[in-house]
This record gives sequence, structure tokens and C-alpha cells, in this order.
Amino acid sequence: MLPEEKVRQIINDVLDGQKSVQYLDDNYHPADIAEAIDLADGEERKLSAFRALGVDMGSEVLPLLGDEARDLILKRTEAEGLGDLIGEMDSDDAADILGDVTDEKAEDILDTVPDEVDQEVSMLLEYDEESAGGIMQIELVEANEKATVAETIEKLRAKADEIKDVHNIFVVDENRKLKGVAPLRDLILNPAKKTIGEIIDSQPPIYATVDADQEKVAWLFKRYDLVSLPVVDNEMVLKGRVVIDDVVDVMEEEADEDIMTMAGADDEALTQTHTIREMVQYRLPWLGASLIGGFITGALIWSFKMAI
Amino acid sequence: MLPEEKVRQIINDVLDGQKSVQYLDDNYHPADIAEAIDLADGEERKLSAFRALGVDMGSEVLPLLGDEARDLILKRTEAEGLGDLIGEMDSDDAADILGDVTDEKAEDILDTVPDEVDQEVSMLLEYDEESAGGIMQIELVEANEKATVAETIEKLRAKADEIKDVHNIFVVDENRKLKGVAPLRDLILNPAKKTIGEIIDSQPPIYATVDADQEKVAWLFKRYDLVSLPVVDNEMVLKGRVVIDDVVDVMEEEADEDIMTMAGADDEALTQTHTIREMVQYRLPWLGASLIGGFITGALIWSFKMAI
Repeated sequence: MLPEEKVRQIINDVLDGQKSVQYLDDNYHPADIAEAIDLADGEERKLSAFRALGVDMGSEVLPLLGDEARDLILKRTEAEGLGDLIGEMDSDDAADILGDVTDEKAEDILDTVPDEVDQEVSMLLEYDEESAGGIMQIELVEANEKATVAETIEKLRAKADEIKDVHNIFVVDENRKLKGVAPLRDLILNPAKKTIGEIIDSQPPIYATVDADQEKVAWLFKRYDLVSLPVVDNEMVLKGRVVIDDVVDVMEEEADEDIMTMAGADDEALTQTHTIREMVQYRLPWLGASLIGGFITGALIWSFKMAI
Repeated sequence: MLPEEKVRQIINDVLDGQKSVQYLDDNYHPADIAEAIDLADGEERKLSAFRALGVDMGSEVLPLLGDEARDLILKRTEAEGLGDLIGEMDSDDAADILGDVTDEKAEDILDTVPDEVDQEVSMLLEYDEESAGGIMQIELVEANEKATVAETIEKLRAKADEIKDVHNIFVVDENRKLKGVAPLRDLILNPAKKTIGEIIDSQPPIYATVDADQEKVAWLFKRYDLVSLPVVDNEMVLKGRVVIDDVVDVMEEEADEDIMTMAGADDEALTQTHTIREMVQYRLPWLGASLIGGFITGALIWSFKMAI
């Protein structure tokens, strides 16, 4: 957690009309600005600090805020202001924000954004939140397998402003069907005239379909040490990509869920039980199982101790 | 988990003298070969499959094996054979393997490897296993801040065989003190004649010191959405890098530890208690706390329900 003094310094700098967004960008990481706003005193101070960031930096900070500050800003910002922010965001973050406001407000917001953004985000919103489609982003760099390395680098250059974390180029055929994945390193190390089709692995690429469960996606990242993963539809047509930092969030979520479940406080229990009696009824078997499990573990350890 | 049929197919292909290592490499990911060996029937079959891989592929598969197959191979392979494997491995994996054999065998193994590997791995072994130094690898691409983009690309080319996952170039001054981090993307997008010092962020780079706890390292990756992190000594001299896939493993470990602790079976308890009575004594307070916690949670939820 940021020390109090640092929080004050960041908020003062943000609110200081003399200090440009460039100054903030040169001195603070968006994650630190987000935490400073989370920890700032009072709703009005949080709000004015966020507003002082402007659209570019605001669109980076908003997805990083804690629930409280985020809800506050979503509630207190007009649809048009949110539309501006969403227009600058990665599509997965934009979809998350729209999932957090009322359906009515989401529609109002989408009315203010360019058609292209509307279409992309609306598509993402159709996928289950816990599926590959629900956590992927649209932004990626793709190259036709017949394009040369030089052409692909030009394409990357054209998209550089829009897409920040590029680790891999996704290679497709003329129907946008996924053919392979080329790490940036291979673009640098291969002659400019080679085609992308020649430099990709002969092994079929690792991918997820849009409806794959997010746990499956996390498993693929872990097993194959990935930094990004192409997501395709049932016809193998490229739809988006999942990036490792989103998976890290999923892993945290799943670990928390596991811990909640073990403590007998999983989602269902928390949302569907209503009285203390029900809570106790729900928990007691878990505690009993835990006790019995403890004895079994103890016995096992004791017997292994014998074996050693 | 791999289906039985797939396990059989992989093992048969591995043991088939007609199928080259290139064939295996084109058709299977090392993680799948590792799991097939984990699931293969019997020690002898596991051993002969592993040996059939040869040194190059064996050095990739060994760190991915489950504990059982890994221990088997470490026990049944001579120091020289393990030395060959370790010589081809990333330094962090090599250090892990050496940490898993007896000190005597580790010394025997290190006697068989080139001096450079010996020095690197011995240095890594001096760090606490759960520190940044203990999980980092030596392999990285560094560039002097005065080098041009073109020179840095040449350096990357020279190291390409040795280092597979390059996402960032670490930028240092003439004393090897860390100055910044340049994503590969920036090498591609900037003119060849610019110096690396000109293209890095003006913000000081995010780094960990060798003695930082691995939890701190994982936190940095999560907070700043990193894919790799430079590790420095107390004088800011670059010592190594941690890559995201190692952090994913750390996160798993820490989550498991949390779950173990919650179940009253954390490391200390498992390793230091000796009798069932002690186990019970150790666990009961946890179970009691869990029960009381359950009631408190129940009460809280009930009171929030009132508030809603």
C-alpha cells in the first residue's frame, strides 16, 4: 500500500493545474495514481483528482481503481464522459466498465461512442464473463501468412499507438483462420523478405475458443508458459487475444474462490443463504469435514513418518 | 490431464528410434512430453523415454516433470549426464535441479559443467529460494544506454539461440547499473540509429533487489502488469531477470500455502509436529477460529442484509 505521504504528493500533483499530464506520466505509473485516488480522503477529492487526469490518463487509471472509487466515478460521471473514457480503453476494460453500470446507462454510453467501438464492445458483452470471450480483448496485431516480415513490421507500426502490449503477432490465412503465432523476437531476427508463414512454428498454435472457461485459459498459460493467447470461434476464425496480466487476475480470483469454498463461504452460500441458522447449517458440515480431514491427514503423516 | 491414448502415442513416438528429435519438436510441446512421462507406466519406461529425448529436449522436459519422475531421473542419472542436461538449461532451472539433489551429487555435477555455468549456477544457489535472487535467471539481453537500436538488435541476434523468451531489453550504464527497460516493440518501431537511452521511459524502471521476497516480486508483476522484471544488487547492478511464467508458479505456490495455512496445515506444522496429539493440538485452535470466524461472518452478512 502506498504510504500516506506519497498518496498526498500524487493527489497534489494531479490537482496542481501547473503540472501537465506529461509530467504525471513521466513521474507516476497509472497503478500508483489509481491507488492514490483509492486512498484519497473523501468522495469529492477522489472525483476531482480523477477528473483532473483528463481522458487519456483517466482511461488508463479507471480500470485499475478499487471498487469504491470506481463505483463513485461511474455513478457521478455522465454517459458522454464515460463514453470518451471507454473510447480510449482496451476493449476488455471497456466491456468490464459497461458490465458494471445499469443496462440503461450502458446503452446511453454506447450511444456516445463511435460505431466501431460500440460494435466491438457489444460483441464482447455477449460472451459469458468467465469465458475466454469474456476476458479477451479485440486489440491485436494480425498478419496474413503470405505477408513478409517487413510488411508485418509496417502493420505493427501503424497499430503501435492503439495497442501497447504486443508480444506476439497472430498469423491468419485469407479467411482470418488462425494459422500460427509469431513472437516479436522472430520478426526482429528474420530477414525482411521472408513470409510470416515461413517463420512460424510447424506445430499447430495453442489457442482457446471463445466459449472456453477462464480456468481452462489460465491452465493453458501455466502449462505452456504463454504471455498471450489467441481466441477463435468454432470455425478457427481469430476473434481476440487474452494477455497474461488478465490471466493473473483470473488466477487471483480463482484462488480466492477456492479459499472461500474451503471456508464454506462460496458464492452460492453467500448469496443464497439468509439466516444465521442457515449459515451455520451450511458451514457446520464443512467444519466437520475439515476436522475429519485433519485427523486423516494427521494419520497419514504419522504413517508416512513410520515408513521413513 | 492427457488422455491415456495420447500418453501412449507420445511415449511410443519418443521411444521409436525412427522418429527424430525434430519430429518430436514439430509435433509435441515439451510440457506434453513431460506429462506423458509422468503418466507412463513403470519406472523403466519413464527412464527410457526420458533418455530417448537426448540432451536438448531432455533439458527442456526435465524441469517440467512432476516430482516422482523428476526424482527418479535425478537418482538414476550419473553426475555427468545431469551436467550435460544442466549445461543446456536456463540457469534458474539448473539451480532448482541442483537444489533437489544431495550436496555431494550437486558438487559432482558442477565438476562436469563448463566453468561459466558452474559460476552462474553457484551464484544463484547462494540466494534464498524464496527471494528474487532465488527465482531469477541469469539469461537476459542487456544493452548499454549509449548503444544504438541497430547494435542492440545485433546483440539480440547473437544471443537468440541461448535465450528464448525475450520480451524486454535491460538498459544499463557503463558500470552495469540498471537505467531502464525497453520492450522489443520499441526496438522494432524506433529508427536504427537512435540510442537505447533515448527510447527508454523517463520514469525510473521497476525492479527488485536480489533479496526481495518472492511475494513482493509477484506483487510487482500484478500491480504493474509486467512480463519480466530486472533484478539488481544493492548497488543497482543488474544481476538477472524474473520472467512471468516463474511468477505464475510462485503465485500458485503462495495460494497453496494460504490454503494450507487456512486448513491449519502450513509448512511448519507439517514438518515440525510429530505426534497425532501435537497435530490435533495444532489444528484445534484453527478449527475453533474458523468456527468463530464463521459465526462472525454470518453475523456480518446478516447485519448487512438488514442494511440492504
